[in-house]
Amino acid sequence: MSLADVDTPALILELDPFERNLRRLNESLAERSVKVRPHAKSHKCPQIAMRQIALGAVGVCCQKVSEAEALVEGGVRDVLITNEVIGARKLQRLAALAKQARVAVCVDNVENVKALDAAAAQFNVTLDVLVEINVGANRCGIEPGEPAVDLAKRIVDSAHLRFAGLQAYQGSAQHMRKVEERRAAIDGAINHVKRTRELLGKAGIPCPKVTGAGTGTYLLEASSAVYDELQAGSYIFMDADYARNDWTESGIPRFEHSLFVWTTVMSRATDERAIVDAGLKASSIDSGMPRIADGGPAEYIKASDEHGVIQLNGAAGYAVGDKLKLIPGHCDPTVNLYDDYICMRNGRVEAIWPITARGALW
Amino acid sequence: MSLADVDTPALILELDPFERNLRRLNESLAERSVKVRPHAKSHKCPQIAMRQIALGAVGVCCQKVSEAEALVEGGVRDVLITNEVIGARKLQRLAALAKQARVAVCVDNVENVKALDAAAAQFNVTLDVLVEINVGANRCGIEPGEPAVDLAKRIVDSAHLRFAGLQAYQGSAQHMRKVEERRAAIDGAINHVKRTRELLGKAGIPCPKVTGAGTGTYLLEASSAVYDELQAGSYIFMDADYARNDWTESGIPRFEHSLFVWTTVMSRATDERAIVDAGLKASSIDSGMPRIADGGPAEYIKASDEHGVIQLNGAAGYAVGDKLKLIPGHCDPTVNLYDDYICMRNGRVEAIWPITARGALW
Repeated sequence: MSLADVDTPALILELDPFERNLRRLNESLAERSVKVRPHAKSHKCPQIAMRQIALGAVGVCCQKVSEAEALVEGGVRDVLITNEVIGARKLQRLAALAKQARVAVCVDNVENVKALDAAAAQFNVTLDVLVEINVGANRCGIEPGEPAVDLAKRIVDSAHLRFAGLQAYQGSAQHMRKVEERRAAIDGAINHVKRTRELLGKAGIPCPKVTGAGTGTYLLEASSAVYDELQAGSYIFMDADYARNDWTESGIPRFEHSLFVWTTVMSRATDERAIVDAGLKASSIDSGMPRIADGGPAEYIKASDEHGVIQLNGAAGYAVGDKLKLIPGHCDPTVNLYDDYICMRNGRVEAIWPITARGALW
Repeated sequence: MSLADVDTPALILELDPFERNLRRLNESLAERSVKVRPHAKSHKCPQIAMRQIALGAVGVCCQKVSEAEALVEGGVRDVLITNEVIGARKLQRLAALAKQARVAVCVDNVENVKALDAAAAQFNVTLDVLVEINVGANRCGIEPGEPAVDLAKRIVDSAHLRFAGLQAYQGSAQHMRKVEERRAAIDGAINHVKRTRELLGKAGIPCPKVTGAGTGTYLLEASSAVYDELQAGSYIFMDADYARNDWTESGIPRFEHSLFVWTTVMSRATDERAIVDAGLKASSIDSGMPRIADGGPAEYIKASDEHGVIQLNGAAGYAVGDKLKLIPGHCDPTVNLYDDYICMRNGRVEAIWPITARGALW
């Protein structure tokens, strides 16, 4: 089937740039000993996770127990939940999953350590637990330094838990537009990690690994000599918002857009605007409107639930029935709106990959 | 099962306020002959559509052929697609569906009329077709007046189509905050409809109905003496954005919030903020952040993919593991993130209603 025959709206993955992105990340890290553990919250798809692992990733990350279940079901054998898991039911599912695969999870709270230990005991497993420290994103994460060390001690003292290291993700740095802003933010994160690791050492607690980083900054963490694993996720797709970052002098390769929303012009009521059938139920607008992929003067200026308004700015074409590619503003929540990737190569459908962790909220 | 035992994030429908909202719409229209055809794009759920119909709705609206299929599969016998349907495959599915239920669709383009006629001929059905006119929303819709009448003639001349009237929805009026702004916008829409209907009459084309209106304005259309059917949808749920409208002197009843995102506090790293497990994959933020339902000083100020940041502003409680209700900023795209409504009454789960048109994009 050719692209023209794919009905809309659909989520299109162009395999050539996608595979180049996979390789580019590895190539950019060729001289370094740091490991890659890509974030699967972006793609929610075991088919993609297994390709990342085949190219050398040590495993993947995700944010939710239900995502981890979908990934393990799809063949992944090493999953880090880069997030706190709260509530007895979720902890039981997590402990049960640890019988099938290597599963690690983060904590920032002592009560959660106790609950994790109890769930692990119930299922007779030993869980890898990382202390999440707040390195500037001001979201989850205990304060670095002494509070983090105290929490690590509680893990070490838990019969069914193993202290697996530090989760230190500076999420708010990833979309800072300027390279120097991102560098300053990551320098701050690195200092927090170094200080915490030193204190762990003084307390006699080995820190098996430090994990973090995203597509916007991962070479900075890779050069830090303190991060052991990188969690970049969006590099495989490269959404419109990440493309607004300044990449010059970052050293980070030019990842290409590989993920698109395929849409049809459904109305041409005036010469000035075209209406397409992909609105905010087809492309998340939390990080801005989608961009039109062809590079012409037309702009996607407004999204309602089921409609997108394109201001033509003199662009030719855009007849009713014409189809076009949109670059989503933000890949992660856009992927979560679809059940499948339509995988294209040279204008033909090559595969359909189910997004088995779509809607995996808990 | 009690609400406390429902795992998070989950989409909660409180049946008591939901049912009051259903009745309130009807009561507010008791003295009028106008019919109700609620919009199912908000709920995507046959269980809700059938309840609306049981209370007197003539059928429901939706935006997509795949939504119409899910509604008909769930028992609905009269569906209006308030939208243009473009492309041979979708038109064939539409024509096939018309063998099972009464299905109507909108057009704003003559080529689409031809394609609809061809699909209807292929399936040996007669399709009801409305001309969508632009009454100020500047989205889809042919210009009112002569252009609309010319298009209606093309429908009348089509062997397998029946001209079913005018679709005249002023979408941009619905969320105008002030009553007088909404009134001015709807007065404009009414004038466009009147003029078009007069011209249809002069051309000898009966106009079986005029359909439109939303939760923000429906009493204005109901009082117009030109609208025959009202398409309000959000009134059943009442999201945070609609609640920001000024309703005083609108005559529209105070619809209650009935739809909530149920979420757990997962981190309390500082005294100032709590982190909950419902981010923008659990509650669409296109129309603003969700509101916390309890009315206290705490505010949901920021959403990332899987996290919500709550600024506590001195609020008590919010311990790790506590659960709370969020009022979504915008109900329609939030519903589209879930597979089920967890229906509650008096604190107990009474039913689970599948959202069978979730992700129905085409």
